[in-house]
Amino acid sequence: MSSGKLYLIPTELAENSTEKVLPSSIFSLVDELDFFAVENIRSARRFIRRASEEKVIDSIQFEVFDKNSVKGLAENLLLEVLQGRSLGVLSEAGCPGIADPGAVLVEKAHEMGVKVVPMVGPSSILLALIASGMNGQNFAFSGYLPIQDGERASAIKKLDKEIYRSNQTQIFMETPYRNDKLLKDLTKFCNPKTKLCVACNITAEDEYIETMSIQDWKKMKVNLHKKPVMFVLGK
Amino acid sequence: MSSGKLYLIPTELAENSTEKVLPSSIFSLVDELDFFAVENIRSARRFIRRASEEKVIDSIQFEVFDKNSVKGLAENLLLEVLQGRSLGVLSEAGCPGIADPGAVLVEKAHEMGVKVVPMVGPSSILLALIASGMNGQNFAFSGYLPIQDGERASAIKKLDKEIYRSNQTQIFMETPYRNDKLLKDLTKFCNPKTKLCVACNITAEDEYIETMSIQDWKKMKVNLHKKPVMFVLGK
Repeated sequence: MSSGKLYLIPTELAENSTEKVLPSSIFSLVDELDFFAVENIRSARRFIRRASEEKVIDSIQFEVFDKNSVKGLAENLLLEVLQGRSLGVLSEAGCPGIADPGAVLVEKAHEMGVKVVPMVGPSSILLALIASGMNGQNFAFSGYLPIQDGERASAIKKLDKEIYRSNQTQIFMETPYRNDKLLKDLTKFCNPKTKLCVACNITAEDEYIETMSIQDWKKMKVNLHKKPVMFVLGK
Repeated sequence: MSSGKLYLIPTELAENSTEKVLPSSIFSLVDELDFFAVENIRSARRFIRRASEEKVIDSIQFEVFDKNSVKGLAENLLLEVLQGRSLGVLSEAGCPGIADPGAVLVEKAHEMGVKVVPMVGPSSILLALIASGMNGQNFAFSGYLPIQDGERASAIKKLDKEIYRSNQTQIFMETPYRNDKLLKDLTKFCNPKTKLCVACNITAEDEYIETMSIQDWKKMKVNLHKKPVMFVLGK
């Protein structure tokens, strides 16, 4: 019997955007598969219901694969794939393997010789980058900045310096309830001429994407509290 | 009259993959728009024919916006957008604004207060990253490596060092006819334990994505000549 594949399946970033952001190949793939590795079964079920009207959810085998999962579980799941049963990895939002435990499954798949197939879907990192108008030939994503004040100030200053040293665009994020604080810190510690793009609620009805200089952001009043935001710094 | 928008419209990476990689919102948007900024009119026409069967191509205004275009042209196009006529930016392959002149239009749009809307589509950088199984919380894309032997060797050594220093995954590419040379150089200058993902012909029928250690790549024979490849280094 020929081996199955490990499909990396992106999900929507915003409510009511399923049709808008996912290609039809995702819907037909979800129709086909009956074996999924997910972080949270409840939200995975909801996604599958949105992606496939006809799918009989009860026929699906869900395996919870989260940050507490061990490599042994990955190996067991992938042994089934080698025996011919394809496995879909679902992220909670956006692309699996970027900021979720899916990457461990992918790593193991390569070790075991399981074919990995990345599916196209929304990535807030990439959408923020292209919408920022900043240098896309050279960029870095560094996840979350440190929380502690001193460390955070020096992390911001270092990113800001890197922009001028190597023309590398800097992308990062924050826990949503601390967004306003981060925006304030950026206006405090960056060069006033540095450009900042705030990309908020990407792909949602009320998507807000604005690039301006740090000195102009200082004069702006925006409310980013508890909203998903990607921050992009550049020149 | 209310202002139009600047839509960033991704295109396919591989032949015969239009339906597979683009969400339906791209097709309806292409149906609607009659004003496009493109690098090459011929390939833009072909894309639009694939994306919209009913579109009357002769009714479309194409403006060539390439690396020789000046900011003055961007301003003129965007003045029309401010007057209510939405403009679509098409890339030659993948997402506009990453490795093409579209970024200049986006930069100017922010300066002029034109709303920028990034549409979802395939990005070989992101697909390679998620399929590599490497750290997606911290990564950098650095475009093309230097061509000259000495500079290239030190660029590779620097990237390799950065992986161990900061756990930052490194993504880069090469002009397709020099891919095999780059693979050889990577096996020569990286730590034998470093992992390399070669992501070739992403989203095509013959997609090839393989992650293994540099020491294992040394024993492999692959032919990457003239194929689109994204290289990902990590641990």
